[in-house]
Amino acid sequence: MNIGIYIYNRAEVLDFSGPFEVFSSASLICPSGNPFNVFLVSEMGEAVTAACSYSVNPAYGFHNHPPIDVLIVAGGDHTEELEKQAVIDWIAEVGRKATLSASVCTGAFLLAEARILTTQKVITHWEDILDLQESYPDLTVCESKRWVDEGAVITSAGISAGIDMSLHLVSRLYGFELAEETARYMEYDWTDKGKGLL
Amino acid sequence: MNIGIYIYNRAEVLDFSGPFEVFSSASLICPSGNPFNVFLVSEMGEAVTAACSYSVNPAYGFHNHPPIDVLIVAGGDHTEELEKQAVIDWIAEVGRKATLSASVCTGAFLLAEARILTTQKVITHWEDILDLQESYPDLTVCESKRWVDEGAVITSAGISAGIDMSLHLVSRLYGFELAEETARYMEYDWTDKGKGLL
Repeated sequence: MNIGIYIYNRAEVLDFSGPFEVFSSASLICPSGNPFNVFLVSEMGEAVTAACSYSVNPAYGFHNHPPIDVLIVAGGDHTEELEKQAVIDWIAEVGRKATLSASVCTGAFLLAEARILTTQKVITHWEDILDLQESYPDLTVCESKRWVDEGAVITSAGISAGIDMSLHLVSRLYGFELAEETARYMEYDWTDKGKGLL
Repeated sequence: MNIGIYIYNRAEVLDFSGPFEVFSSASLICPSGNPFNVFLVSEMGEAVTAACSYSVNPAYGFHNHPPIDVLIVAGGDHTEELEKQAVIDWIAEVGRKATLSASVCTGAFLLAEARILTTQKVITHWEDILDLQESYPDLTVCESKRWVDEGAVITSAGISAGIDMSLHLVSRLYGFELAEETARYMEYDWTDKGKGLL
């Protein structure tokens, strides 16, 4: 299963490195092969300078990535991305073909702009809840949850909540035991119970 | 204050991206300027392929980094690093000059090999506790703590525990309120109480 994480200049570091750690660790420790192939994707496929000058090299660009089964859109300073038609079109196309799409933090704005999010219950960083609700009034923006699972689309709260959402995805896509073992391997204090909204 | 994070091929992604997120966020939200300048350092200063093909570009190499006030050594597959005399010598020299040195996960092995850790109480990833104790018998390797603060040297447990340790460092180096605000900004469930060993 191919997990593609969309990143861009000024994306928040933990928004993409947290989910990357979860899926790569889950694959590493999984007793039956490597269920997840996780990779970073940027528009051009060239180095991206994430928040605070953290420079990372995505494995792929829009032009050469393999099929994406699970699309994860990182948050951060997303406002320039909202204006890029090529980015919104790519998210719309990849999100439609994917088994599921997900966002971390303000990545929800990009999923909404691409109409992957339309009328669902969603969540974002606590600082951006009002903005998201006003910008996309057909959404129901929740509060005080780590993630919201609406089936084909899942959103998480800010920054570190992307780790909890990714563990939930491992649980949903492969099994609860592997998610628990992954959290234990990462020494992450995780529980799927009560933290999210199914 | 310059926070230098040492990374290398097969370093664990969250071991360095977690502390990077904490210090960069703390600087970003700090009401009085930017107290922390955090950057990644590798031996050669060229792209590093961390665990599971995550490629990152450090800001500096051993030859050109600015003075480091706080050295953080990431864990991961550290065994090759232990054999590199240039790496151990660099950690020893930078660690001696720094205000404090810290490790995440199995980074403790590198601090011990460089004699920054000698007879202190320490912690590492739960899978490596026995190995660390046997390899460096003068250390007292603890269990069931997120981090152990021995003054000039601080070690953390595995992977995600580097986030808790870094928040503790923000608290110690700047103030508890900024650490709490940083955790809130990151939506990270953090408490300094009872999780570490002072």
